[in-house]
Amino acid sequence: MAAADDDARAAAKRGIPPHSDFNAWYPAIVEIADLVDKRYPIKGMDVWRPYGWKAMKLIDQLTHTEMERTGHQEVNFPLLIPQELLERENRLIARLKAAREAGVDPSELRIEDEPEGFANEVYWVRHAGEHELEQPMFLRPTSETAMYTLFALWVRSHADLPLKTYQIVNTFRYETKQTRSFIRVREIHFFEAHTAHADEDDATRQIEEDLDIVARLMHDLCLPYLVNRRPVWDTFPGAWYTIAIDVLMPNGRTLQVASCHHYRDQWAEAFDISYEAEDGEHRHCHQTTYGMSERLLGAVVGVHGDDSGLILPPSMAPHQVVLIPVAAHTSPEVSDMV
Amino acid sequence: MAAADDDARAAAKRGIPPHSDFNAWYPAIVEIADLVDKRYPIKGMDVWRPYGWKAMKLIDQLTHTEMERTGHQEVNFPLLIPQELLERENRLIARLKAAREAGVDPSELRIEDEPEGFANEVYWVRHAGEHELEQPMFLRPTSETAMYTLFALWVRSHADLPLKTYQIVNTFRYETKQTRSFIRVREIHFFEAHTAHADEDDATRQIEEDLDIVARLMHDLCLPYLVNRRPVWDTFPGAWYTIAIDVLMPNGRTLQVASCHHYRDQWAEAFDISYEAEDGEHRHCHQTTYGMSERLLGAVVGVHGDDSGLILPPSMAPHQVVLIPVAAHTSPEVSDMV
Repeated sequence: MAAADDDARAAAKRGIPPHSDFNAWYPAIVEIADLVDKRYPIKGMDVWRPYGWKAMKLIDQLTHTEMERTGHQEVNFPLLIPQELLERENRLIARLKAAREAGVDPSELRIEDEPEGFANEVYWVRHAGEHELEQPMFLRPTSETAMYTLFALWVRSHADLPLKTYQIVNTFRYETKQTRSFIRVREIHFFEAHTAHADEDDATRQIEEDLDIVARLMHDLCLPYLVNRRPVWDTFPGAWYTIAIDVLMPNGRTLQVASCHHYRDQWAEAFDISYEAEDGEHRHCHQTTYGMSERLLGAVVGVHGDDSGLILPPSMAPHQVVLIPVAAHTSPEVSDMV
Repeated sequence: MAAADDDARAAAKRGIPPHSDFNAWYPAIVEIADLVDKRYPIKGMDVWRPYGWKAMKLIDQLTHTEMERTGHQEVNFPLLIPQELLERENRLIARLKAAREAGVDPSELRIEDEPEGFANEVYWVRHAGEHELEQPMFLRPTSETAMYTLFALWVRSHADLPLKTYQIVNTFRYETKQTRSFIRVREIHFFEAHTAHADEDDATRQIEEDLDIVARLMHDLCLPYLVNRRPVWDTFPGAWYTIAIDVLMPNGRTLQVASCHHYRDQWAEAFDISYEAEDGEHRHCHQTTYGMSERLLGAVVGVHGDDSGLILPPSMAPHQVVLIPVAAHTSPEVSDMV
């Protein structure tokens, strides 16, 4: 009891609010534990300090290991995407959304809705130096449009499939809601796997593999989690269906830390990603995506921390500490402490 | 001779120009060897294919190892920088440049020149979604202004020094010259080390350490190189002096693959980075930077490749191959081949 009082006093001295007051504890601990510095002069864009960045890179390393185990290849696409590609994506998404609302197959609809999709969430680059750019560009919020433009060139024959790629890159969303370190940020440290398959079944098997990867990562991070197929209103508009992985945070709210999308052949049609099958026919690919971010670190911080501060699982702790009681039996004080 | 003819025929079949025609060979080989895909629809922004990205990450790993050996800590700063910070930087650079041209110490000058510096080379973000941003921002061409804003908060006392940090991030320059994979690109895979020291001498020792790191990396990459203190007209305008590292490419041109800048206390004055010395006085820090990029890979490709294609040194080759002649002495054909 005396020791617990000491802990509480020490924590208060460092300015750590009680963990039970999670909405005060979380934003305080990410700075007190030297994970990030929030004093950078743009809202929602924190500076990663060495300790936080090391922890994040160790989580990334778990992901890289899983990607290698499952035969995904790492690529790196440009950050900037030409506006014309967004328009193509938005036409697709408007059509899929309308079809879903009407309860019909997207192929039955040919509409020319006002494009929407990500248009309201992206940062635009329209000027360089003193010039207005002929070709406006935006910062990727995610890389479907950038990647699928090249997938259409990379995939030729059934021998090129499955195409399993991923990247870990910075992505951007113009968040208007309140930002929170790792949980809702404007520059996102983003993992995105993109795959292309010969048919719907093979894409479905990819989703199963993704969920197996999630299970392994959550085991390594010691995080209990929920897997749910999202209801229609919460499905990514470009997806046939979305399976999301949530962690229950101490404030009683769920935090979505990963999502897997089955795209069927909808994007492949829009971006003309097709292959010559063994029977000589040309068919569109079926695609999936699997995304994660620094929310994994946010979940680790939130779920494992306590009144005294940060607690990290050994799989991604930058400092590995082993306590070895030495001749503890000879001293009651030492054995009490351990 | 017959084998050489065969090689030449095989190379021609893959479309590899002769290495002696370097200006044709280089842009061809980066695609033929699957390092990048140049068909992305923005000039100067290539897609890193898995093999190229793996090679680059292995070079990065050599750099990480050197940074760890020398006690640098890895950080990660936001990509976007508020316009007001650029103005501060440009005022500083205009003053330093004018002082250098007048041959006087910058402290003797108080001018209000038109800011220039990077203003003509940056990509601007002035809109997000449908909104015009209250605070215009630009994509970092390098991170002095972003970092030094925080350094001013991180450095308090002599005990905080030396501060040795680095990051490997994407930076952007609006290149108007002809672009070339790895050599002149618009999205740069950039390594930048930034340090702060108690005095000029300690910063000078940092430059010496940087040059030792360069020597080790160049040894690992099997690259002959030149180290030169740049003449005034070729010194980074923000620097007291610049030492640059060049590799001689097969077309007879030098390629600058690294540069080290001694900033003295000029940036520290502009950004108010000061510390309390042991004697209780407050003094400005002296700073250095050390930069490298994917030009290292460009140099490796250019210097080591030949008519048959790519040749990578073992330190960063994604595939490690060892040829073991088996009972070669019993077969003249095998011993000829080896």
